[in-house]
Amino acid sequence: MEYKIAEHIAAMKPSAIREIFKVLVDPEVIALSAGAPDPSSYPEEEMAKLSAEIFAEDADTAFKYGMTEGYQPLRDLTKKRMQEKYSTGTDADDLIITTGGQQTISLLTQTMINKGDTIVCEGPSFIGALNAFRSFGANLKSVPMDEEGMRIDELEKVLASSENVKFIYVIPTFQNPTGRTMSLERRRQLLELAKKYDVLILEDNPYFELRYEGEPVPTIKSMDTEGRVVYAGSYSKVMSPGMRIGYCIANPKIINRMVVCKQVSDVHTNQFFQMVVARYLQTYDIDKHIEEECKLNKIKRDAMLKACETYFDKRVTFTHPEGGLFIWCELPEGCDSLELCRRITEKKVACVPGSAFSVDEDAVSNGFRMNFSMPTLEQIDIACSRIGEAIREFLD
Amino acid sequence: MEYKIAEHIAAMKPSAIREIFKVLVDPEVIALSAGAPDPSSYPEEEMAKLSAEIFAEDADTAFKYGMTEGYQPLRDLTKKRMQEKYSTGTDADDLIITTGGQQTISLLTQTMINKGDTIVCEGPSFIGALNAFRSFGANLKSVPMDEEGMRIDELEKVLASSENVKFIYVIPTFQNPTGRTMSLERRRQLLELAKKYDVLILEDNPYFELRYEGEPVPTIKSMDTEGRVVYAGSYSKVMSPGMRIGYCIANPKIINRMVVCKQVSDVHTNQFFQMVVARYLQTYDIDKHIEEECKLNKIKRDAMLKACETYFDKRVTFTHPEGGLFIWCELPEGCDSLELCRRITEKKVACVPGSAFSVDEDAVSNGFRMNFSMPTLEQIDIACSRIGEAIREFLD
Repeated sequence: MEYKIAEHIAAMKPSAIREIFKVLVDPEVIALSAGAPDPSSYPEEEMAKLSAEIFAEDADTAFKYGMTEGYQPLRDLTKKRMQEKYSTGTDADDLIITTGGQQTISLLTQTMINKGDTIVCEGPSFIGALNAFRSFGANLKSVPMDEEGMRIDELEKVLASSENVKFIYVIPTFQNPTGRTMSLERRRQLLELAKKYDVLILEDNPYFELRYEGEPVPTIKSMDTEGRVVYAGSYSKVMSPGMRIGYCIANPKIINRMVVCKQVSDVHTNQFFQMVVARYLQTYDIDKHIEEECKLNKIKRDAMLKACETYFDKRVTFTHPEGGLFIWCELPEGCDSLELCRRITEKKVACVPGSAFSVDEDAVSNGFRMNFSMPTLEQIDIACSRIGEAIREFLD
Repeated sequence: MEYKIAEHIAAMKPSAIREIFKVLVDPEVIALSAGAPDPSSYPEEEMAKLSAEIFAEDADTAFKYGMTEGYQPLRDLTKKRMQEKYSTGTDADDLIITTGGQQTISLLTQTMINKGDTIVCEGPSFIGALNAFRSFGANLKSVPMDEEGMRIDELEKVLASSENVKFIYVIPTFQNPTGRTMSLERRRQLLELAKKYDVLILEDNPYFELRYEGEPVPTIKSMDTEGRVVYAGSYSKVMSPGMRIGYCIANPKIINRMVVCKQVSDVHTNQFFQMVVARYLQTYDIDKHIEEECKLNKIKRDAMLKACETYFDKRVTFTHPEGGLFIWCELPEGCDSLELCRRITEKKVACVPGSAFSVDEDAVSNGFRMNFSMPTLEQIDIACSRIGEAIREFLD
C-alpha cells in the first residue's frame, strides 16, 4: 500500500551525511565523527558493583513500572548537586529525569510548538536538536556565531522580524559543533533579549563539566529569576551515553506538561539505570571521576590541536576549545566542506561536514567538525595527517 | 512569565482519575489499578546473572551510543521468534526496538498524523494510547465493542463518515481495559475494511502470550499481506515493565520514518537491557517462563472471578477474560462508575473508572477496570468484598 506520512515528517530529507556515515562500517576507517566520551572513561567497574547491589537489595523497584517524573532519589540528588555546585535551578524549579538531553529537547518542543511556530538557534547547531524541531513542524531560524557565541545584534534582528518565536535554543558551553563557549556578557544579553521579546531559552549543556582550561562560566539558568530558562542536563558525557539518562530543570508549569508528553512517549526512563546513577552519586565522587575524564580528554585535545597545526594548510582555521569533545575547522570562505569530507572518507577518515549542522541543509558550509575524545592518540595523528593531505589536494 | 503551551498539549485535561491515583500513596490501599505483571514473575535471578556477564564480557557495547534501530541481536532474535512462533512479520517487514509498546504508539502517531487527522479506536481503549494520539493533535473516534471485540458494522459507519483516517488502533487480545479478545472472524473483517478504506491498522498486542485458557487467535499482522498492519510488541508483560523494552514490526517504509522520529526522541533504547533481553532469549526458555507466569496469573484471575461472583450485586456484570491482566465490570446502564470508584477509594481500594478509557472523557461510563495480577490472593478477596459493599451502597 501507499503510506501517507505526516507532512513535516515526510519533509525531513535523508541527510547528505548518511553516505559519510556508511563508511563507518569499515573497521579501517578512523571515526572523528562521534560525539561521545572515550569508553575507557566510563565507570564500568563501579556500575557493575552497584548493579549487583541493586539486584540483591532492590530488584523489584528496578523492574516494576516507575514514575514518569523519574526515580525520586535521582531527582533529589541531581537537583541538589546542580543547585549547590552550579547555582542551577532553584527551589521554585522542578526536575524530571529524561532519556538524555535529546529527550529533553524533544519533550520541550512537543510541549511548546504549534506547527509553524519559530525556534531560533545558533548557526551551526546540533543536528539532533534541529531534527527534533523539524519533526514537530517548527520553523527554524539561525543566528551566526563568533568567538563569543551567538551574535546578540543578529539575534535581535531575528527576534524583531519573526512571529511566534517560542524559544531560543543554545548550547552555550563547548558548543556542538564549534566547541565555542558563550561569554558571560553574551549570556546576560541573551537573557535580557529573551525577556524583551518574551520567549523561553532552552539551555542545552551536556558538555559543560568537561573543561580542560580557563575559568568556568555560570550557566544561563543560574541567572534566571523568572522561569525563562529550561535547562537540559545529561549523564551521557560524564558517565555513559548508552544508558540514556539525562534531566531537565525548569518551572513546574513547563515540567508538568513535559511529564504529560513523556508519559505518552515512553511512560518512564529505564528504572534500573536511574538507580545505578543515584547510587553512583551517593557512593562515589563524581567530581573526581569527571576530573579524571578531563585529564584524558585534555591530552587528546592537545594532540589534535598539535596535529592540526602540523598537518593543515594555513588557509584552514580551527577552534581552540577550552573543553568539550569537538574542534571546528573552516576552509576559506566559499569552499564546500561536504565535498572535502567526501574526499576525506576516501582516505578512510570520517568527519562531519558543516551542512549537517545548518538550518538550511542545502546551503554550502565551509566548516567541518572533528571529535577528539573517541580516537586514540595514534589515530588522531594519522587521521589529521590524512585530512591535511585531503585539504591540500582540495585547495590546490 | 506566562507560558504559551502548544494548543493540543494545553487542551489535554488533568484526568479525573488523578485523584483516585492519589490514594495509592496510602500503603493501606489495595491497588487494583495497575497494569503490570506480579513482580514475583520477573526473571530477576536470570537477569542478575546475565547482567554480570555483560559487565564482564561486553560492557563497552552496553555503555556507548547504540543504533537507533536497536541492538542487532535483539532485533534478529525477536523477529525470528515472532515469525516462527506466531507467523507475525515477514522477511519483507522490518523490526525496531522501542522503549515499550507506548513508544511504538507514539512514534507511529508522530510518523502518520497531521494535526486534525483521525484515528479510530475501540471504545473503551487504553488511556496511554488515547493520550499519545491527543498529544499529536489527532481527532479520535471510537467504535463500540461487544463480546467479540470492535463491532465491524459500527466501524464501517465511522470509516464511511470520517475524513483523513490514518489508522485504526486495536488491542485485539485480552484488551485493555475490557479483557476481551477479538474473534478471528472479526480480525479478518477488520483487515478487509482497512483495505477497503485504505487505512493502516495499529495492532497493540502486549498481553497476547498471557493466555490461561481457550485457543490462541492468530495476530492480525499474521494475516497481513500488504504491509497494512503495524505491530506493537512488548517485553513488559512477559519479562519486566521497568526495563522499558518493546518492539515494532512493520513495512520498512514505515519503520524508516519511525526511526527518524525515534532518533530525535531518545537516540536509542537503553543498550544494556537490550543486551539483557537478547541474552535471556539465547540462554533461557522464555516460553517456559511465560507458562509459569500464566499459571500464577490464572490462579489470581480465578480468585477474582470467584470473589466477583460472591460479593457483587447481580445487577453488575463482569467479563471472563481468557488471559491478560484485567476484568471489566459494568454497572446497570446510566450509572456513573466515576462516582462509584470514588466511594471505593474511601474503602481503601483503587479501581479505574471507565471514563479514563473513553475518547470523550466527560461522558458518563458505567464500567470500571480491575487488575488481578498485582494484588495477592488475600488482597483480591478483601478488595472485592469492599467493592461489593460499595456497589450495594451505590445501587441501593
